[in-house]
Amino acid sequence: MSEIASKASLESVAPFLPLIYVAWADGELAADEIGAVREAASTASGDPSVQLLLQRWLDPRQPPSAFELALLLDGIEEAVARSATDLDQRLDLAALGLAMAESVDGVSSVERDALMRMQEALGVDGTEAARQLLASGRPGAERYSSEPAFDHEGLADFLDQPEAATRQRVRDVLKRPAFRYLDEPTRAEYRDQTYVWLKLLGEEGFGSLSYPEDCGGAGDTAAFMAAFETLAMGDLSLLIKFGVQFGLFGSSIHQLGTERHHREYLPKTGTVELPGCFAMTETGHGSNVADIETRATFKPESDSFVVDTPHQGAMKNYIGNAACHGQMATVFVQLEVAGHEFGVHAILVPIRDQDGRPLPGVSIEDDGAKLGLNGVDNGRLAFSGVEVPRANLLDRFAQVSAEGEYTSPISSPSARFFTMLGTLVGGRVSVAASSNMAAKSALSIAVRYANRRRQFGPPGESEFTLFDYLSHQERLLPRLAKTYAAHFALRDLGRAYVVSMADDTSDRRELESRAAALKAFATWHGTDTVQACREACGGQGYLEENRFAALKADSDIFTTFEGDNTVLLQLVAKGLLSEYQKQFHNMNFGRAVRYAATRVSGKLKELAPSLPRSVDASVLRSREFEADLFEYREEHLLESLALRLKNRIDRGLDSSRAILDVQDHMIELALAHTDRVVFESFCSAIDDAPEDARSTLELVRALFALSTLEQGRGWFLEHGALEPRASKAIRKEVNRLLGELRPQAEHLVAAWGIPEELLAAPIAN
Amino acid sequence: MSEIASKASLESVAPFLPLIYVAWADGELAADEIGAVREAASTASGDPSVQLLLQRWLDPRQPPSAFELALLLDGIEEAVARSATDLDQRLDLAALGLAMAESVDGVSSVERDALMRMQEALGVDGTEAARQLLASGRPGAERYSSEPAFDHEGLADFLDQPEAATRQRVRDVLKRPAFRYLDEPTRAEYRDQTYVWLKLLGEEGFGSLSYPEDCGGAGDTAAFMAAFETLAMGDLSLLIKFGVQFGLFGSSIHQLGTERHHREYLPKTGTVELPGCFAMTETGHGSNVADIETRATFKPESDSFVVDTPHQGAMKNYIGNAACHGQMATVFVQLEVAGHEFGVHAILVPIRDQDGRPLPGVSIEDDGAKLGLNGVDNGRLAFSGVEVPRANLLDRFAQVSAEGEYTSPISSPSARFFTMLGTLVGGRVSVAASSNMAAKSALSIAVRYANRRRQFGPPGESEFTLFDYLSHQERLLPRLAKTYAAHFALRDLGRAYVVSMADDTSDRRELESRAAALKAFATWHGTDTVQACREACGGQGYLEENRFAALKADSDIFTTFEGDNTVLLQLVAKGLLSEYQKQFHNMNFGRAVRYAATRVSGKLKELAPSLPRSVDASVLRSREFEADLFEYREEHLLESLALRLKNRIDRGLDSSRAILDVQDHMIELALAHTDRVVFESFCSAIDDAPEDARSTLELVRALFALSTLEQGRGWFLEHGALEPRASKAIRKEVNRLLGELRPQAEHLVAAWGIPEELLAAPIAN
Repeated sequence: MSEIASKASLESVAPFLPLIYVAWADGELAADEIGAVREAASTASGDPSVQLLLQRWLDPRQPPSAFELALLLDGIEEAVARSATDLDQRLDLAALGLAMAESVDGVSSVERDALMRMQEALGVDGTEAARQLLASGRPGAERYSSEPAFDHEGLADFLDQPEAATRQRVRDVLKRPAFRYLDEPTRAEYRDQTYVWLKLLGEEGFGSLSYPEDCGGAGDTAAFMAAFETLAMGDLSLLIKFGVQFGLFGSSIHQLGTERHHREYLPKTGTVELPGCFAMTETGHGSNVADIETRATFKPESDSFVVDTPHQGAMKNYIGNAACHGQMATVFVQLEVAGHEFGVHAILVPIRDQDGRPLPGVSIEDDGAKLGLNGVDNGRLAFSGVEVPRANLLDRFAQVSAEGEYTSPISSPSARFFTMLGTLVGGRVSVAASSNMAAKSALSIAVRYANRRRQFGPPGESEFTLFDYLSHQERLLPRLAKTYAAHFALRDLGRAYVVSMADDTSDRRELESRAAALKAFATWHGTDTVQACREACGGQGYLEENRFAALKADSDIFTTFEGDNTVLLQLVAKGLLSEYQKQFHNMNFGRAVRYAATRVSGKLKELAPSLPRSVDASVLRSREFEADLFEYREEHLLESLALRLKNRIDRGLDSSRAILDVQDHMIELALAHTDRVVFESFCSAIDDAPEDARSTLELVRALFALSTLEQGRGWFLEHGALEPRASKAIRKEVNRLLGELRPQAEHLVAAWGIPEELLAAPIAN
Repeated sequence: MSEIASKASLESVAPFLPLIYVAWADGELAADEIGAVREAASTASGDPSVQLLLQRWLDPRQPPSAFELALLLDGIEEAVARSATDLDQRLDLAALGLAMAESVDGVSSVERDALMRMQEALGVDGTEAARQLLASGRPGAERYSSEPAFDHEGLADFLDQPEAATRQRVRDVLKRPAFRYLDEPTRAEYRDQTYVWLKLLGEEGFGSLSYPEDCGGAGDTAAFMAAFETLAMGDLSLLIKFGVQFGLFGSSIHQLGTERHHREYLPKTGTVELPGCFAMTETGHGSNVADIETRATFKPESDSFVVDTPHQGAMKNYIGNAACHGQMATVFVQLEVAGHEFGVHAILVPIRDQDGRPLPGVSIEDDGAKLGLNGVDNGRLAFSGVEVPRANLLDRFAQVSAEGEYTSPISSPSARFFTMLGTLVGGRVSVAASSNMAAKSALSIAVRYANRRRQFGPPGESEFTLFDYLSHQERLLPRLAKTYAAHFALRDLGRAYVVSMADDTSDRRELESRAAALKAFATWHGTDTVQACREACGGQGYLEENRFAALKADSDIFTTFEGDNTVLLQLVAKGLLSEYQKQFHNMNFGRAVRYAATRVSGKLKELAPSLPRSVDASVLRSREFEADLFEYREEHLLESLALRLKNRIDRGLDSSRAILDVQDHMIELALAHTDRVVFESFCSAIDDAPEDARSTLELVRALFALSTLEQGRGWFLEHGALEPRASKAIRKEVNRLLGELRPQAEHLVAAWGIPEELLAAPIAN
């Protein structure tokens, strides 16, 4: 039937060509549907040859060939080209046919009617089909751009506070060529390079920032915290090695030791002349530090402690700096003096000589390759009859005299343990901030890519950017909002930490609980965000040059170290229960619970927030609405938890088992508490923000709050705190906020100030 | 005050020692609370010296020292040791004091009363405090063990079907020393080793299993799929290299080519004599294959096609086997014949000579290091005027004659495109199954570790296993259940795929949609599960020897390749809309939507499932209850989506923009649909399972269903499909199921049959 596609014959049926082409090119019309179009065409023309041709073209038993269809399309394109004026974009198939035919012969009213009937029979959206038909290629597209709604530098400076100058110094150092990422180093090379970097940072004075001024430091905890957080913009192995040397090892001396330890060791620690380890975790005991088994026994005849690892499971494990570089370790031990046990204490144990050889009695194993952080030399330490001078006991909270007399300003063993462990809190604060920085790096890359990368789009137009897709906005923008929220909450936490370091009377328990909560919040957020951003960058995100590989692998362990997140959240929940009485820890758990339960019993119902009558944007976006829900959920969970625990303890369960039983509830409470704390920090931060940035930040705050509430809507609906109508309204409002914030997203990530060089992300530029 | 802790003085206040110790050791009692205990002790004894001693011990202004407390504890321990019989575990502090005192002197009724009053004033749980006090060290614990509720081998064999023999052969091969994982190879070494492995598998005949028998194959698609899935127990770089060579490259020849291609190339492909690539994705076009820009133009004078890469963005990218080993590539091109465009076609292009040198006109770049899968040599390919014989066109669906005549059995260009792309479906099915295998590997390690690792516990008892913790059960068991669910759904999908390969008349569109849905489901599940299991193994999970490093890095890209999950879910949703009319694709989207909307309009309310009157376990665990909810959600989402789309199209939006607007809804629908499909597969699989395993599998099915419904409870509550009461009941039932399944967990993972050697997980053994 190739004669039907001859040039002459195509011209004779010109007005019908678009319809015919679409009918077949579609490829999905059933025979009877083609038949219906054919039927509609049956009186299309008075000219029998035209009529015959139309019936032939629309014969379901003899579909045109692929080649004929190609010719047909060519014919249409030629006819369109011939038509004098640009064709209206809103033409449908029938009108397109008419426009084409006019350039040939003109069209009769009979043909016109037939066209309309055929288009109806075809059942497609004629306008869209015509546009697709005419589309040839795609025009190039400009890079997406938008105006910031705020002064960019003003917000960046606000986010850099406090310690903006220190942050800038760290950025400048990291941008130096000496700190360029290595290209596929071996593990040994990577460890060596990280050590070189560490020493450079030591030389720059970053390591000793928090140490006392007379020990080579600057006495400036806030600056140290800021430096650490900013280092997380770069290589995370370096960050962790830095944290081990100056933070964990150095701080253990600083905070658990006394002046003579400070004078002797801190200057050398700050310059990395004395590379050190923080040996707390054992293979058998990670989270449960109270049950570690490494032992130090006082030996009066030599005025020394003898350090021993009783069995393999009690080896110190995952210890940074242990496999290669460490020369001394702060070792956590069970202290035994004169046959009495005094619980966990820290003691300085030399582990290597200056040539790097393990000292007698010290066995060192390499932890080998890890999922990430391979620039850090983690290893295992075991001790066999290692004698260290009595003076090596870090004795701020407990002293042993030459005569073997044990004294401590804290007589309760339990309180002593928690006080010493409290020195970990700085590490938690810092790890949380670093995780959030990993989220910032990932988002900085993914948001830019989302505005540049295009894929799919309407025919004849340039493709959509990825960020035009709602699903893509949903992936990135709530996480961006949460990153802002975490930023402000962590800033408040950091400030509280700095205050507590200067003030012994501050409430450490509250600080520790907040640090635990935000550490879990920020590290899970970091892991989740890095993953989502990798996926949002597709195959590009999988290439190592685009940095997700390193971010993902290196930040993964943040959810585990410095306290496993799940364990931390249980501590948070216990802390909340104890707030009722300010007298709560493991020992008298039952008492706190009962007290709490007595106070709250029967009170639950009064708390329900008054449901708002209207759920329009102004209500949903208001701080009050959001705050009410966050607070209600926390209160309700706390009080129902207390009741459930009381129940179990009344039934005779011991407290450990009662906790096991309601552990899901405890974690839910801790998470709800954290959301509330983070939300409050966000609100108060906005009040301090540059005025021109506030309205944008309020949108970010609303997106954080509403997307968090949306995720938790199951609970709110179950407990009558949201009506279905309000819950649905929240989801819609989240979508609206996504649309409003998309143009600001790139400016919001830029304000984090991560230098281009450190993103090392070709795809984002 | 050290005289108060002398041996004699301690004996004189023996009955009060436990109470005194706890009062101070607690460390948290305020002065007025200690005062209250002291007050209660004020008439404890007629003996003034005893009375004085008690008042001294309980003086808030003079707390005992740490050392005195240690002596006190020693005193208690000695007294307990002296007491003739084993002390009752249920003694409280007062009773303990009495028991101790009896071994000394006996106790007066005055002392007895005072003890009671003091214990009350102390306000602790006396029994628990006494137990803690007496606890010294922890007894060793047996390894957790439990009896399987079913015949283990029977279930394992059932799970191995179909093609159990092939699976066993692959296991046996992978266990050979030659396939041992490399220890920290360089990238070059890893690529070489993977290539060696690939050739070994080729020699064993695994690669050609699906090829026709007269081309060196076994004509057995099912066996090939089983082999691929089982290979995912081992190194995933090998898996992907295997998939590229035999699956993508080989299958493109097999399915897009014709007999002469089969005869010429398949035998060499199966033995890896001809290593090949599958070059579809371009840097600029990953998901949107229709818009790729590589071009092949027919040149009649030389009877050849000329292949060209018009610009850098059109380079083929991420192409496996391209950087090092590939000698030929199936290249997807825009085909141009005699000035006409015929859309995307596949053509065989030699890229390297046998010595591995790129051929003239072919540029090859290395993609370099990646987040994972570094044993696969991904690269970029560009072509500049590369001529290949006309015979190289894979011409099953379109032929070009020497005269430049283009013919195709499928005249619609759109249908032709989708038919050719349909060849990808096998890859999707296989990647989904491999992701689920990654989840199985991760769970196999984490579940065992959870039963072995202990941390924290009640004083004096052995520590709890991690799996005793509800939060740990919540981390692992719903994912275990989902892995079972995915297993059965993927088995059904694999069977349908095998059927479709043998039967040209089968409904490919439905199969493609199901493959897309399950690919997204299984790959997100894999990523999520590997991460959760890594975290559940703490620091141990971070060490490379424990395999999470490789699992996490290597399986990460599964969510992106063979179709980005988000893009796939949109296809699924479009497919569901079109089911109303079986006539739906991009071209006539508007029609399908309108048709769908007409059919459903006003129907939504009738569908609400009748809420069950009772929500006890028998209802919640019933298939009917769960099926109703899954079905209702899918139907409701489908119909409300159709209405929303209709609305937008009626308002004049084109279909692409209408879709953007409701994209979240489309993805939600696709996910809901997938849950329902998976659930149904699970149910019907149980009906075929060995009888003794069914009741356990029903628990697994219920856990999968209820935890999925729990996660989605926000939607059900919003839409009145669940009442708050039922929603809460579901959460409780999930917890009950966790407790019931925990003893079976290790047996359930063992039934997956992943050899110990491949888990390479010291922590799990």
